[in-house]
Amino acid sequence: MPYSELSINELETELIEAKKEYEHLKGLNLNINMSRGQPCQEQLDLSMPMMDVLNSKADLRCEDGIDCRNYGVLGGINEAKKLLGDLIEVPAENIIIYGNSSINVMYDQISRSFVKGVMGSTPWCKLDKVKWLCPVPGYDRHFAITEYFGIEMINIPMNSDGPDMDLVEKLVSEDESIKGIWCVPKYSNPSGITYSKEVVDRFAHLRPKAKDFRIYWDNAYSVHHLYFDNPDYLDEILNECKKAGNPDIVYKFTSTSKISFPGSGIAALAASEANLVDIKNQLKIQTIGYDKVNQLRQVRYFKSLDGIKAQMKKHASILRPKFEAVETILDCNLTDLGFANWTKPHGGYFISFDGYTGTAKEIVSKCKEIGVLLTDAGAAYPYHNDPNDSNIRIAPSSPTLEDVKKAAYAFCIVCKMVTLNKMINEKREG
Amino acid sequence: MPYSELSINELETELIEAKKEYEHLKGLNLNINMSRGQPCQEQLDLSMPMMDVLNSKADLRCEDGIDCRNYGVLGGINEAKKLLGDLIEVPAENIIIYGNSSINVMYDQISRSFVKGVMGSTPWCKLDKVKWLCPVPGYDRHFAITEYFGIEMINIPMNSDGPDMDLVEKLVSEDESIKGIWCVPKYSNPSGITYSKEVVDRFAHLRPKAKDFRIYWDNAYSVHHLYFDNPDYLDEILNECKKAGNPDIVYKFTSTSKISFPGSGIAALAASEANLVDIKNQLKIQTIGYDKVNQLRQVRYFKSLDGIKAQMKKHASILRPKFEAVETILDCNLTDLGFANWTKPHGGYFISFDGYTGTAKEIVSKCKEIGVLLTDAGAAYPYHNDPNDSNIRIAPSSPTLEDVKKAAYAFCIVCKMVTLNKMINEKREG
Repeated sequence: MPYSELSINELETELIEAKKEYEHLKGLNLNINMSRGQPCQEQLDLSMPMMDVLNSKADLRCEDGIDCRNYGVLGGINEAKKLLGDLIEVPAENIIIYGNSSINVMYDQISRSFVKGVMGSTPWCKLDKVKWLCPVPGYDRHFAITEYFGIEMINIPMNSDGPDMDLVEKLVSEDESIKGIWCVPKYSNPSGITYSKEVVDRFAHLRPKAKDFRIYWDNAYSVHHLYFDNPDYLDEILNECKKAGNPDIVYKFTSTSKISFPGSGIAALAASEANLVDIKNQLKIQTIGYDKVNQLRQVRYFKSLDGIKAQMKKHASILRPKFEAVETILDCNLTDLGFANWTKPHGGYFISFDGYTGTAKEIVSKCKEIGVLLTDAGAAYPYHNDPNDSNIRIAPSSPTLEDVKKAAYAFCIVCKMVTLNKMINEKREG
Repeated sequence: MPYSELSINELETELIEAKKEYEHLKGLNLNINMSRGQPCQEQLDLSMPMMDVLNSKADLRCEDGIDCRNYGVLGGINEAKKLLGDLIEVPAENIIIYGNSSINVMYDQISRSFVKGVMGSTPWCKLDKVKWLCPVPGYDRHFAITEYFGIEMINIPMNSDGPDMDLVEKLVSEDESIKGIWCVPKYSNPSGITYSKEVVDRFAHLRPKAKDFRIYWDNAYSVHHLYFDNPDYLDEILNECKKAGNPDIVYKFTSTSKISFPGSGIAALAASEANLVDIKNQLKIQTIGYDKVNQLRQVRYFKSLDGIKAQMKKHASILRPKFEAVETILDCNLTDLGFANWTKPHGGYFISFDGYTGTAKEIVSKCKEIGVLLTDAGAAYPYHNDPNDSNIRIAPSSPTLEDVKKAAYAFCIVCKMVTLNKMINEKREG
């Protein structure tokens, strides 16, 4: 029966039970980290054969004969552009290959815009105010970048098919100080949703007041399906923007971090030719080139998009049971109580949980006390400020399946305990 | 006999000879690149065994048990800090390990200073003017960074023991808009000189008017000796600054680019604790961490500073004959003619040539016509502006020894031809 229909006495009885179970859990000395979207040991092992593709006998020249061991090749080797282009459905000529971190690429984009502007626009550091649209809940590392640069972040509610586009269109058309929007369009972090055709189409047709407005399209989970027989579909944004006569409005990001090794993958940016010229004018000052040996290693290992997909199926078979375990345990323990809901994503790395208003911080804190580490409450919101204090990001990838089950159960008990406590106090206060 | 002592008729006779030889060289269809400090094939081959140290059977955990394949470890793994700390004589705790490019690290330092200032100072983008001291001739990629950020560059003459410190001290003590100085203190690019103890001491005792002034100490060639039995000595700047009560004034940079693979080494920054705190506050926003697998690969291969030194001796034995060939050929062909001088460095990657005033551009251009590619004339000066048009950087590392000899000889002939032409015109004009 839903908690909302219980009397204060009934709630108190439930609370006693929950507290008892909490004390029991405390005795188990759990030590489980569900705070970050980190692949687990077993997933890391999947890429170990990659360590053998380049050995001391290997020819380290790439297809066009360039020796990958030496300096140079600013935009990345052609075969890596092709592979990552295929990964995100963009021609190789629209791709730049970077180092190991797509977050670093996004940071650099914003950093350059501050110092030099975007394709000739006023450098953002010369403006009184720069604002950014942030669909929420969203990715904490995105928000950390915009916060670092002193950019004012504006929350945009997320619907089941993407950000609230009415609001996005209205704001960007009115306010020239709005220079960008963060998007994780597929298996979104943390809500797991994928943007619909209509949403992508509306993005492609945006007519922002600021000519230097850019959509930061972080396609981090393009092939990170949990269910390969029925993956989510996402329209390709670069092509849609081009068709809409709006080719320069988007930067698209990807990496092989969660395909190969998270610390040692390769990242890429895709954009229109005009954007790439702008970017390379800076890039050639910043570096002589990124690690081509690692680019070659990734290409020689995966060979093609098919190779990547085969690898992703193996990842999915490790991750899927963990997601399903969390979902099942939450279903069994919480569904009937009616105070919370959570996502059941078809891919990506997160489950987004929405509990009773005003409980998220306390839940995360109480979980930590019994050895279950969750992402900080509020992390999925700009300035770590979840206005309802209700959202918690669950990241089931890293622990073992056994630990995921224990953590999910412990999480349910803590949710009950904290929620009951809160409800009882509210009833008492009247 | 020196050209300066020849009559116009004698000069013309010499010119006819030089032109004849130039035409002969043209017929050889040379194709030799001496423009960049790129290691040659043979040097790249030295590091091939590094490709075997991490294979699919290897344990990719570092000394403290962290799995290098996963996300994290922002400042680099401890054993890499230790190795690169040993390389540049700095404790591991003063080191941050980055990606594959030390130029990128320097770029990031300046970029952050523009957006956020230095340890709480006013962000440079908010200042009317930022200036920088540039010992000349110097490294073109350094100057390209400061030029990109719109920093006004001030030439500082180089003496045989380092920059003109009287001028450096005077300028930094008077002008608060001077925020930094580029230094390649050992086997300097391109002059090959190493800063004396006195120069390092005066750097350590600098009292700049700007609190956010930093010495950019690019220790790119710390162990890049050509003569291991008699290497140049350089005082360790971080320690000297600390002793002088000036611990925060310097950033020191290094990398294994010219020790292992130029495109796939690891870079590092060394600085005081207070500087590192400032830097990491930004770094944690910019990335989750750099490529730890490559850090581990480098450490497992070189093992220790001794391992690096053994490798550098092999590099030296490849490079030394090339440098000596250039020096010998220049000696035989040009010394007696009295119009040029050049450096005979004990390490590093360059010979710096100073010819007759007003000839450098023409020499580089005429060399290019016969297939000998040199660094653009003026490249060693801010804004590519060599006030005397006399300096040329010779980079003998990349071609084969045979080609280096051919290129050096061709260079001498071109120098003669262009200089004779110039001298004859000057005499005619009176």
